[in-house]
Amino acid sequence: MLGYGFMGDAYSRALLALRNQDVPLRPELVSLSGRTAEPLERARARWEWAEAVSDWRKQVEDDRVALFVNGGPNDVHAAPTIAAARAGKHVVCEKPLGRDAGESYEMWEAAESAGVTHLCGFNYRFVPAVRLARELLDAGELGEVVHFRLRYLQSWSWDADPKAWRFDPHRSGTGVLGDIGSHAIDLARYLVGEITAVATAVQTIVPGRRVDDHFVAAIEFENGVKGTLEGSQLAIGHANSNAFEINGTKGSLGFDVERLNELEVGDAHGFRRVLVTQPEHPFMRFWWPHGHIIGWGETFVHELAHVFGAIAGEHSVSPHGATFEDGYRCAEVIDAILRSAENRTWERVAYR
Amino acid sequence: MLGYGFMGDAYSRALLALRNQDVPLRPELVSLSGRTAEPLERARARWEWAEAVSDWRKQVEDDRVALFVNGGPNDVHAAPTIAAARAGKHVVCEKPLGRDAGESYEMWEAAESAGVTHLCGFNYRFVPAVRLARELLDAGELGEVVHFRLRYLQSWSWDADPKAWRFDPHRSGTGVLGDIGSHAIDLARYLVGEITAVATAVQTIVPGRRVDDHFVAAIEFENGVKGTLEGSQLAIGHANSNAFEINGTKGSLGFDVERLNELEVGDAHGFRRVLVTQPEHPFMRFWWPHGHIIGWGETFVHELAHVFGAIAGEHSVSPHGATFEDGYRCAEVIDAILRSAENRTWERVAYR
Amino acid sequence: MLGYGFMGDAYSRALLALRNQDVPLRPELVSLSGRTAEPLERARARWEWAEAVSDWRKQVEDDRVALFVNGGPNDVHAAPTIAAARAGKHVVCEKPLGRDAGESYEMWEAAESAGVTHLCGFNYRFVPAVRLARELLDAGELGEVVHFRLRYLQSWSWDADPKAWRFDPHRSGTGVLGDIGSHAIDLARYLVGEITAVATAVQTIVPGRRVDDHFVAAIEFENGVKGTLEGSQLAIGHANSNAFEINGTKGSLGFDVERLNELEVGDAHGFRRVLVTQPEHPFMRFWWPHGHIIGWGETFVHELAHVFGAIAGEHSVSPHGATFEDGYRCAEVIDAILRSAENRTWERVAYR
Amino acid sequence: MLGYGFMGDAYSRALLALRNQDVPLRPELVSLSGRTAEPLERARARWEWAEAVSDWRKQVEDDRVALFVNGGPNDVHAAPTIAAARAGKHVVCEKPLGRDAGESYEMWEAAESAGVTHLCGFNYRFVPAVRLARELLDAGELGEVVHFRLRYLQSWSWDADPKAWRFDPHRSGTGVLGDIGSHAIDLARYLVGEITAVATAVQTIVPGRRVDDHFVAAIEFENGVKGTLEGSQLAIGHANSNAFEINGTKGSLGFDVERLNELEVGDAHGFRRVLVTQPEHPFMRFWWPHGHIIGWGETFVHELAHVFGAIAGEHSVSPHGATFEDGYRCAEVIDAILRSAENRTWERVAYR
Repeated sequence: MLGYGFMGDAYSRALLALRNQDVPLRPELVSLSGRTAEPLERARARWEWAEAVSDWRKQVEDDRVALFVNGGPNDVHAAPTIAAARAGKHVVCEKPLGRDAGESYEMWEAAESAGVTHLCGFNYRFVPAVRLARELLDAGELGEVVHFRLRYLQSWSWDADPKAWRFDPHRSGTGVLGDIGSHAIDLARYLVGEITAVATAVQTIVPGRRVDDHFVAAIEFENGVKGTLEGSQLAIGHANSNAFEINGTKGSLGFDVERLNELEVGDAHGFRRVLVTQPEHPFMRFWWPHGHIIGWGETFVHELAHVFGAIAGEHSVSPHGATFEDGYRCAEVIDAILRSAENRTWERVAYR
Repeated sequence: MLGYGFMGDAYSRALLALRNQDVPLRPELVSLSGRTAEPLERARARWEWAEAVSDWRKQVEDDRVALFVNGGPNDVHAAPTIAAARAGKHVVCEKPLGRDAGESYEMWEAAESAGVTHLCGFNYRFVPAVRLARELLDAGELGEVVHFRLRYLQSWSWDADPKAWRFDPHRSGTGVLGDIGSHAIDLARYLVGEITAVATAVQTIVPGRRVDDHFVAAIEFENGVKGTLEGSQLAIGHANSNAFEINGTKGSLGFDVERLNELEVGDAHGFRRVLVTQPEHPFMRFWWPHGHIIGWGETFVHELAHVFGAIAGEHSVSPHGATFEDGYRCAEVIDAILRSAENRTWERVAYR
Repeated sequence: MLGYGFMGDAYSRALLALRNQDVPLRPELVSLSGRTAEPLERARARWEWAEAVSDWRKQVEDDRVALFVNGGPNDVHAAPTIAAARAGKHVVCEKPLGRDAGESYEMWEAAESAGVTHLCGFNYRFVPAVRLARELLDAGELGEVVHFRLRYLQSWSWDADPKAWRFDPHRSGTGVLGDIGSHAIDLARYLVGEITAVATAVQTIVPGRRVDDHFVAAIEFENGVKGTLEGSQLAIGHANSNAFEINGTKGSLGFDVERLNELEVGDAHGFRRVLVTQPEHPFMRFWWPHGHIIGWGETFVHELAHVFGAIAGEHSVSPHGATFEDGYRCAEVIDAILRSAENRTWERVAYR
Repeated sequence: MLGYGFMGDAYSRALLALRNQDVPLRPELVSLSGRTAEPLERARARWEWAEAVSDWRKQVEDDRVALFVNGGPNDVHAAPTIAAARAGKHVVCEKPLGRDAGESYEMWEAAESAGVTHLCGFNYRFVPAVRLARELLDAGELGEVVHFRLRYLQSWSWDADPKAWRFDPHRSGTGVLGDIGSHAIDLARYLVGEITAVATAVQTIVPGRRVDDHFVAAIEFENGVKGTLEGSQLAIGHANSNAFEINGTKGSLGFDVERLNELEVGDAHGFRRVLVTQPEHPFMRFWWPHGHIIGWGETFVHELAHVFGAIAGEHSVSPHGATFEDGYRCAEVIDAILRSAENRTWERVAYR
């Protein structure tokens, strides 16, 4: 694995957790790489990685490594991941895949050409309530989708350290768009379908900031559905509220990551709050009896279990996992959002 | 008054209720007009109007009439209201003011030239929680506004009678845009400021329908705030959910008409549910001790009390009531929404 | 009518409102009585009562009076109401019926002997969601009831004027028990059945107060259901939260007066929030299209409409309205609660 | 550890998780014991226990064992735990401590005499929101407590296997009382203080069941507070809703295990929903940035981290952990609940 920050912790913990779950492969934590020696060694020791190396190239060359998990900053997504894929390693890369659509395309192309399993870390697909939403949609329980709206609101960035890599456009690519807008776009694509056009505004509200910190968008899907998307890390009162609602001809679904064990299911009589912890609910075979909620960190357990299943040939990464193609397509939507904000027109999402 | 339908009931009830409230004028229910004799007489009798007339021109000529309330369908907003204003009567007209910006402008111009008091029936301004929101904003409690989002969702129109006047574009002007989009726009303008540009999609989803039944919009305000607006009467699970959220540099506010006695007030610790029924809250002097909620119908009592105060010279209609200018400006936003959907560009809202 | 305070306003407004509703009788507001001249005349003028009298005996002797509504303090419930009933007038008396079970029994006995229509003002029976709950129970939708819990919480009484009649045991009988405990008990009886035994604690928390201000109770019903009841006017954060939940063998129901247009309906999948404003819902024929909520004051409109129907012979007061028998039975439960708190045992509710 | 069922999984997972947390001791999973060979070996393998033994006496004699965790059924709580304590091992025992107060007292006495660290597995004390509630109470933020109410509702037991040990009174001691009533009582004691008297009803609703499946109680605390308690596993619509509210002279707190990352904090303006995931909130040093919720399973991580701290001499088990004394005192409250239901009087909780 590359990376020892927030995502490094999330993936390390999930890898260890999978040693005690019924999955077809058993992870060995071979090697952790990162730039700065001291926190790298601390993370290695905490999560019991066998070794820490300062150069990810050593991992790419390491025959013991079968799966390369990239949880580093956005500017070290492309080169290490591409190299790992070309070296025949399966690859998991945190979102956003690349810093823009071009970089993301290269990553997809490399992984696909190499014939390895590839997954982009859109972990919200692995929330039980989100998977259940998709299953209900697939089963036609909502009829045909007619509306979609999602807004992803946090508030931490008013006082954030301006020197963080997230605010350096060279390192991050974009600001709120890549960080949480990408999650928003991926959920829209996963649940409703391909996004074909966007009309947007993109802002930088905090003085002196060099990346976007707010966007709004009207969006259109290939199947004709119109919706809205918004992302902000300046919305006071919200900690991590990634909330969507889908309305269909027969019913509606609502969800918020802050209550990730709940799915709101609407019909003509109103909305019902369903606690998605019943034994038959997605992923619940890993956990507890009904009513004992799981945490955000468990989405990474589900995600990596899905990767292991794909590597073991039990199923493909698609449709329930996001492939690098999904990561790339998401990046094209972000690029279209930026173009629309610049050109002040509806912009079609263009794929190469 | 003109009109004996839903709005006729709402206004008649409110007029009667004001006879028992501490307001500067006492209403006499002089004359009710409408097209169809039988329901007209039934409404007259129910609400104890002194007479019913089939032609509103009689009301315009009637010296006993000091205030003309127009609660009829959209196609009879302009001519009767303009005539009444020219005859020196104060005028209240249901939203949307006219069927388009041109008609609305004429109405505003006529009322303003006549020097009469004029109010457009955006009754949600008279929800205590909405007025409180405005007062908190005016007092700087939220700091500067940075985000705004509102979606107004109902679900009744899947099975609606296609022959209703609301679905006849000549009679209604637009569909969901004029009916509830106008409320959405007016609240945005009342709470955040003038809308300057929109990027939108407008749809007709129900087969055979001749007016729009869904719109989404990215919007920009004069003060730089960007936001989203949406309106639908096809959103299953929602009965009358006009819900907005405003985020500022110091706090946030949330509201939903389905819980119209509540205001959500957010700060760094989360959102607090405030029951807006304390004696010191807006309009509560008319009602009950704390905790005894009021209904939607009461917004018309507050609205007409405001009109009476304006007629009596106690205050102007603005800023808390919507004047015909507000009705006109709302209509220009709707026209811009339609142009943007047609032209597929951001459209500036243009005022004549 | 007797009384010009909070309840005087609630009843006067409802009487006027019924002049414009489809009910079998049309109320004329003949006479208002009360102790203190100035507020009495103000109330008379506000609500357009034809006359104000300082002595309720004049009303009892007045042939024009067909219905006597007693909205005065508890110490003037018995004598005037009994006299009115004996004079052949139909009687409505605010809760609690008398100051204790003995006084309540006399009132019931007098009204019953006189053969007049009698109703005790438990207005929460006339909340649409509460009536719907009862209808669902009657229809067997919940199967057999197994649990019941209700707690009625307000917070106004920390700072209340100690000289108010509510805190004078001679005038009020009891404190929180009679004021809101009676509502709690009546809802329990209306929804689940007769209460047969209680085990309780009753307290006076505010120093110097001469009436109870908090009670807790374990309760048993005739049908074997066990439950809990609690009442307090010292529960900070609550304005008027009368909230119950009923669990049956097939489903559950939840309700809170602070959201009186909503009923929570639970099944194996969770709870659904039902907005009780659909045309087919109880009492909605009086009001608006779906989604336009009604207020607390409307419960008095429904209650008096029910009284009018009973007087007109359309139906009896029972089971949906509370008769004086219900008022008396509620008083026996309160007396049992007091005995249990005193004796520190389960006490059977004893009826004479 | 003894036990390989639900609790076995919860403790095993938490022990492994603590190998990667900053705690003063590093757990080695030495030995797992249990009755039935096949599931025992499956659990051993899953959680990587070094060995599985069919007789817990081997563990008691095993010098490598420093901490004995008893996650078995109630009838194997006492003997193994007492033996382990006498052998000088620190002991953690699942709730309820013993099957009655006598057995619980012996366990406490044995552990205390042996001078070992002892903790009874009331894991809800280790929910961040519950710890925060206690900290707010300790800091006087609520003033003095005046009311307490808690009801713990599940619904799984309508269709439960009647042959399960939980329904065998010899093996379980009691039914709902010991299973979730004990949690309710422990939270009451942890948050408000010692319970001194109870007035209760205890039922068996499901035909043929040999243990209680519903109880209601009015309760009194040493500090004068009165409250209500209820427990049921027959409340349809609830999965695992352990919900309490505390009202004080200055504010209120509300909590529900189904939303275990949230604390409702009330003041005169209403209730605020606080997401208890901020870095400074209890236990959050183990987890993620604000807004990324944790699951029910994490409470065991916190609980065992607390045990490790106590063993390492960093702090005592009390007041934040439940000692065997707390387990015993809880058992006395349960015994008083049973006596009260039998005797139909308020019963004082008697401690030996």
